Amino acid sequence: MKSVVVLSGGMDSSVLAYWSKDQGDQVVAITVLYGQRHVKELDAARVICDRLGIKHEVADLGGAAQLFAGSALTGTGEVPHGHYADESMKKTVVPNRNMVLLSLGIALAVREKAQRVLYGAHSGDHAIYPDCRPEYFRAMGQAAMRCDWEPIHLEAPFMDRDKAAIASLGNMLKVPFQETWSCYEGGELHCGKCGTCVERREAFQLANVSDPTMYREA
Amino acid sequence: MKSVVVLSGGMDSSVLAYWSKDQGDQVVAITVLYGQRHVKELDAARVICDRLGIKHEVADLGGAAQLFAGSALTGTGEVPHGHYADESMKKTVVPNRNMVLLSLGIALAVREKAQRVLYGAHSGDHAIYPDCRPEYFRAMGQAAMRCDWEPIHLEAPFMDRDKAAIASLGNMLKVPFQETWSCYEGGELHCGKCGTCVERREAFQLANVSDPTMYREA
Repeated sequence: MKSVVVLSGGMDSSVLAYWSKDQGDQVVAITVLYGQRHVKELDAARVICDRLGIKHEVADLGGAAQLFAGSALTGTGEVPHGHYADESMKKTVVPNRNMVLLSLGIALAVREKAQRVLYGAHSGDHAIYPDCRPEYFRAMGQAAMRCDWEPIHLEAPFMDRDKAAIASLGNMLKVPFQETWSCYEGGELHCGKCGTCVERREAFQLANVSDPTMYREA
Repeated sequence: MKSVVVLSGGMDSSVLAYWSKDQGDQVVAITVLYGQRHVKELDAARVICDRLGIKHEVADLGGAAQLFAGSALTGTGEVPHGHYADESMKKTVVPNRNMVLLSLGIALAVREKAQRVLYGAHSGDHAIYPDCRPEYFRAMGQAAMRCDWEPIHLEAPFMDRDKAAIASLGNMLKVPFQETWSCYEGGELHCGKCGTCVERREAFQLANVSDPTMYREA
């Protein structure tokens, strides 16, 4: 099977790329630049693709980035610190981001004659991101089946797992976690304080997997 | 109601923008550049927005245009001449184009707190473009309702009409058809021979509306 993996370079999508390869897929990855601050993700995505020996497509939406302005992830305001469950994390919602990412991944699948597109949304994402909900993915999956004459299968294999389960799976698949990038701030080291850093740390702890990440703040 | 109109600058989407304004909507238009040859569309879209006095957003996907390569509309090969019903017209299919356009239109709707996104697909589009089929739009509509905490309504009011009906409606709404651009070739004048020129001419004739277009070839 030929699969397109939507790869941010974070831990979930990197595990997903390894999982797809482990399944015997011919994997093509796509990373989308939509004006996010944490462009270190792109370097991470490149390293992951090198390690896996897979083709990597970069789609730069620089000339459309104004559409995604207003989120803490794309603007100049402060990135909120704390836990994802906090109200403040809603600032990190990027308008319709997932549909844009998926539409580009599906375009690549059509071009590459791939049968499926894999996306790394997991159960912990649902609370604050409306476009990480299962019912949203089901609808997008229906659209993907009809967007071309050949159906494209949209799959989110981690939808019912939490991030700790993803850490466990990645550990088993020998994902080089030290190469992945999660932090929203995009500094030299992971900040250790923003929502995604907090979640990343917690996942390793809960999964009892050693965390190779260098955090700026303990 | 606040509506986002996905506006190519062609005749269908220009009539749609006029229709939306005529309905009393507060209209915001979005034009997406995805590497198409016929960038004269953009000038046309700008003129239409000026005439209507509406806000116009341009999303330039230049840095992702490689995803859409391979279509006669984006590449360097020859644009097929003839009727849309011809097999050769399949070359003008751009991979997953409508999902990409809609996802950006919906992102704008989220940013602008608009309640709906309007798209100009019509009954004549179905035959060669899989992503113009009603069942495709229904699925995308379901996704749009769930992509944010507030539902976005995706509507394609011309889905059951043909292009002649659109020409009639536009005539009634006093759409300045001479300002709209259809031709895939993007020369100084409409070529008169490519699929969309053939369809444009036919629509005016069938609707018995005077065609103000200057065609290079009679």
